[in-house]
Amino acid sequence: MDSLSPTPRTTITRGRNRAVSERTRLHAFLQDALLAHLGVVAGDHPVVLPTAFGVDVDGPDSGGTLYLHGSVAAGWLAKAREQEVCVTITELDGLVAGRSAFHHSMNYRSAVIIGRARPVDDPAERERGLAAIIDHMIPGRWATLRPSTRKELAATAVLAVPLAEASMKERSGGPVDEPEDIAAGVWGGHIPLMRVAVAPVPDEDSRGPAPADVTERAAALGSEDGALAAQSHR
Amino acid sequence: MDSLSPTPRTTITRGRNRAVSERTRLHAFLQDALLAHLGVVAGDHPVVLPTAFGVDVDGPDSGGTLYLHGSVAAGWLAKAREQEVCVTITELDGLVAGRSAFHHSMNYRSAVIIGRARPVDDPAERERGLAAIIDHMIPGRWATLRPSTRKELAATAVLAVPLAEASMKERSGGPVDEPEDIAAGVWGGHIPLMRVAVAPVPDEDSRGPAPADVTERAAALGSEDGALAAQSHR
Repeated sequence: MDSLSPTPRTTITRGRNRAVSERTRLHAFLQDALLAHLGVVAGDHPVVLPTAFGVDVDGPDSGGTLYLHGSVAAGWLAKAREQEVCVTITELDGLVAGRSAFHHSMNYRSAVIIGRARPVDDPAERERGLAAIIDHMIPGRWATLRPSTRKELAATAVLAVPLAEASMKERSGGPVDEPEDIAAGVWGGHIPLMRVAVAPVPDEDSRGPAPADVTERAAALGSEDGALAAQSHR
Repeated sequence: MDSLSPTPRTTITRGRNRAVSERTRLHAFLQDALLAHLGVVAGDHPVVLPTAFGVDVDGPDSGGTLYLHGSVAAGWLAKAREQEVCVTITELDGLVAGRSAFHHSMNYRSAVIIGRARPVDDPAERERGLAAIIDHMIPGRWATLRPSTRKELAATAVLAVPLAEASMKERSGGPVDEPEDIAAGVWGGHIPLMRVAVAPVPDEDSRGPAPADVTERAAALGSEDGALAAQSHR
């Protein structure tokens, strides 16, 4: 199995037992996760912004390629171009109620990727990158959409970040408590959290049922038994 | 109502219509959200790490105080102390299926806070900060726990970030599509996403039912009708 080979700046120094070292597990997590936080340096301070992302595990960069997009007018894009950026992707899986304040924690899966953000100018790679981002949100959707116009493409910047320099951490399960707190009979455990979708909501201009790619995505993000996907609470 | 007064570096330049300007709404969002991403500058590149947080709206800093904690041995803490940091807090609320790739989007609420990270050394403020972090995860929990030991406190660093320099954005609802795509009869809408809890899971050393603070937190994070909180899928 291809190992993640962290450099000193992606070497996990705290909680080494929670480090995940196989690249295939990184790719699987990135497939599952929906939201990235992009960190850039803006002069003398960092800026962190939430963003969508896509991944091409066979992309042109060593270890695979992560794609970001945005408006060509966005300030963060100018700050990220050709600069070292950090892309962090986290899914929160639970709250850990320890027997003491010190042993409270959160369950999560998290990937930290550091690399130079490469502006993608080649039209074919731009299309693959944008397709990866759209299909990451809703698998299969890109193929159902009309082609982007020249104006739309001109307004969109695509950045590639190599997945070469990455680390991943994962915590699951209950607290790791002090023996004396366990002996004292204090309760300890965790509250599992999950992200679920409800049924797709058509906008006021839509006629007819949602397309299959959208309903399948909502069902896949529904609760384990699919029950939630059938209810719309919003 | 107290307005957020962003400086140039927290002024929202893209999507101004999505900026949220009231401080009370920022505080309400921070109350709801569970996970922060902390950005620090490490030499020539940014690092972004997921972390728990707490808020004291009446804290000593202008606009209120956000608290972070970590092991005194954590590398990021040394990088953050007395430095400008960025704390970004995002909740993902939905996937927006536009009628074209260009108009795909995500629904979210997000706050970006930039400020100097102040190490908290005063014992009383350290306790308030740690209580804010624990009670943010599980309201009311701090008061039920044994006091922290001197060893635990010595191993824990607390950082304060002022909420003075903050901005907030929010997107909700369906896509904003091109008139010609709407006229063509293409479907457009969104998939709502929510974070839900299932019933608390006791660890193998626990006897008896979970305490009220834990069961109430799980119920409050359950689905709107509480049905999900009664089922444990994990």
